[in-house]
Amino acid sequence: MRWYFVAGLLTLLTSSQGILTTLSQSNGGYKYDYATVPFLAELFKLVVSCILLWRELKSSSPPRMTTDWKSVRLFPIPSIIYLIHNNVQFATLTYVDTSTYQIMGNLKIVTTAILFRLFLRRKLSNLQWMAIVLLAVGTTTSQVKGCGEASCDSLFSAPIQGYMLGILSACLSALAGVYTEFLMKKNNDTLYWQNLQLYTFGAIFNMARLILDDFRSEFVKGPWWQRLFDGYSITTWMAVLNLGSTGLLVSWLIKYADNIVKVYSTSMAMLLTMVLSVYLFTFKPTVQLFLGIIICMMSLHMYFAPASMLVDVPLTLKAAPQTLNEVSVERPDRRTNMVFNEKIQNQ
Amino acid sequence: MRWYFVAGLLTLLTSSQGILTTLSQSNGGYKYDYATVPFLAELFKLVVSCILLWRELKSSSPPRMTTDWKSVRLFPIPSIIYLIHNNVQFATLTYVDTSTYQIMGNLKIVTTAILFRLFLRRKLSNLQWMAIVLLAVGTTTSQVKGCGEASCDSLFSAPIQGYMLGILSACLSALAGVYTEFLMKKNNDTLYWQNLQLYTFGAIFNMARLILDDFRSEFVKGPWWQRLFDGYSITTWMAVLNLGSTGLLVSWLIKYADNIVKVYSTSMAMLLTMVLSVYLFTFKPTVQLFLGIIICMMSLHMYFAPASMLVDVPLTLKAAPQTLNEVSVERPDRRTNMVFNEKIQNQ
Repeated sequence: MRWYFVAGLLTLLTSSQGILTTLSQSNGGYKYDYATVPFLAELFKLVVSCILLWRELKSSSPPRMTTDWKSVRLFPIPSIIYLIHNNVQFATLTYVDTSTYQIMGNLKIVTTAILFRLFLRRKLSNLQWMAIVLLAVGTTTSQVKGCGEASCDSLFSAPIQGYMLGILSACLSALAGVYTEFLMKKNNDTLYWQNLQLYTFGAIFNMARLILDDFRSEFVKGPWWQRLFDGYSITTWMAVLNLGSTGLLVSWLIKYADNIVKVYSTSMAMLLTMVLSVYLFTFKPTVQLFLGIIICMMSLHMYFAPASMLVDVPLTLKAAPQTLNEVSVERPDRRTNMVFNEKIQNQ
Repeated sequence: MRWYFVAGLLTLLTSSQGILTTLSQSNGGYKYDYATVPFLAELFKLVVSCILLWRELKSSSPPRMTTDWKSVRLFPIPSIIYLIHNNVQFATLTYVDTSTYQIMGNLKIVTTAILFRLFLRRKLSNLQWMAIVLLAVGTTTSQVKGCGEASCDSLFSAPIQGYMLGILSACLSALAGVYTEFLMKKNNDTLYWQNLQLYTFGAIFNMARLILDDFRSEFVKGPWWQRLFDGYSITTWMAVLNLGSTGLLVSWLIKYADNIVKVYSTSMAMLLTMVLSVYLFTFKPTVQLFLGIIICMMSLHMYFAPASMLVDVPLTLKAAPQTLNEVSVERPDRRTNMVFNEKIQNQ
């Protein structure tokens, strides 16, 4: 049952991430270089994983670690997929507006389930598939623009390339998650050694991004390491620590639970962020948010509740009325017990 | 399985009713007195039921008919409930606008299920309850106003009386349906005799409405029977026949299936009307309509599909990969089969 707790914590932290990022902005923009946040978060995760691995190595039963190059070389793959994903994301946004992009982002819930089924060979029941579609429908519902808001007509009017890239983006995002799950579960290596490999490559790829940005801007602002903490406030640091902790929880969940649990956690976090934004920022609650929350809660229950709890018809019936008149109808397995009948008989 | 067919037909006819009513308008108003339509429809249903009853009476095995006053006197009750409902509806609309009223109308899906459980003692599984809530959420989603449309802010801003009356209205509407189901199933009387009683009172109550309207307008347009067919076109006649046929199908469904089937039929009809309006009228399709349709379809499947079809995890697996590496995770009843593994082993 420990994964319930971790998933709940992930929801809270992911939701805080949105709030912290918004709070760290000043006048709608960032005073600091936003690309430094994921880099520092990768470093934080790397340090935490090193400490935890070192503690395990000191213990009486040393952990399992596969140091074979054939295994290690698979660990940069998630980072490479994310790199491609980021570029596809960028390309998508040249065709569609941000609200359409956000709506299409919910597709990754469904693509994750499909890749999960295809690559990890995990079987889901009919009801679980429905729950996943409903989760995507619920998050989309909550994001539908309300009356009087601008930029809505564009939802069905973007060029076809935009939609194709949006689908590709959803597939890449799902592939990264599913591939990481494969890496984490392919052997019984300790989580911290697996994390160490993942985050080392993660830090390298994020650093490469910073260097590339420097080259693009032709070093007008100086090299990245000289301005790494420029404009950092306490909120920015909290965002870094929060993003790092979120990453550690995701790793844990992917190893000990699965990608679907992660998808539920982050979807619920998205709804929680919207609810919190109503109180913290000038976000107006909509009927669609309310409906979206109901749909996602139903989906959560459908996916995780035991089958017997869902489909059993309650057998315990209160003391039946004295004059019980049963009429069988054409529909099978259904009987109608009449309480109105008491009234007639008593009249 | 015959009720599937009847329910489908009811969906088509209910959906046509909305279209026919819109088509029978000229310049956004009615040329004829709209109150004459339900009256003539009641007469049509009465005539059809009389003919069918007469045919049954001629047959070798005469039908069961309870002509006891104690039974007959229950048949005006649905009409009385509808009369109260119409007045509550009218009162509600003085507090809330029509779009809020329309949204609140979806509550009757849930109230029908509750009264169905309480008065008819019909038990539903956890999943069926969820399906009913989702049906209400789905129909509501499809009705949420899109961007740039007027009169949306009022949704949360009507006086509390408006919402209370809306809930009362939903309860009365459900009560009428559930009470009719009780009447139809309380004994094995033939449907046509039950219909004859229901529609006789229905016709009387509708006629009373016409007379009352005459008194209210102080007979400036003359008595109702002199202007009964004024302004009738072929479309108006079709609307009358359609409404009558819808009523006959509802009676049949309520006797041989139940109120929940009826609620599904009419909810699906509402969605079908919206889809048809996109083609027939200047109705712009919205994302919310699309999402609403998915939610309602899921709900339909959840409610009516056999439990085993929903919760069973498929057991048949394609030929497993040769190098199968299974890792047990903490979550029970879950095993992960890796296909990526083949790649590693082959490298």
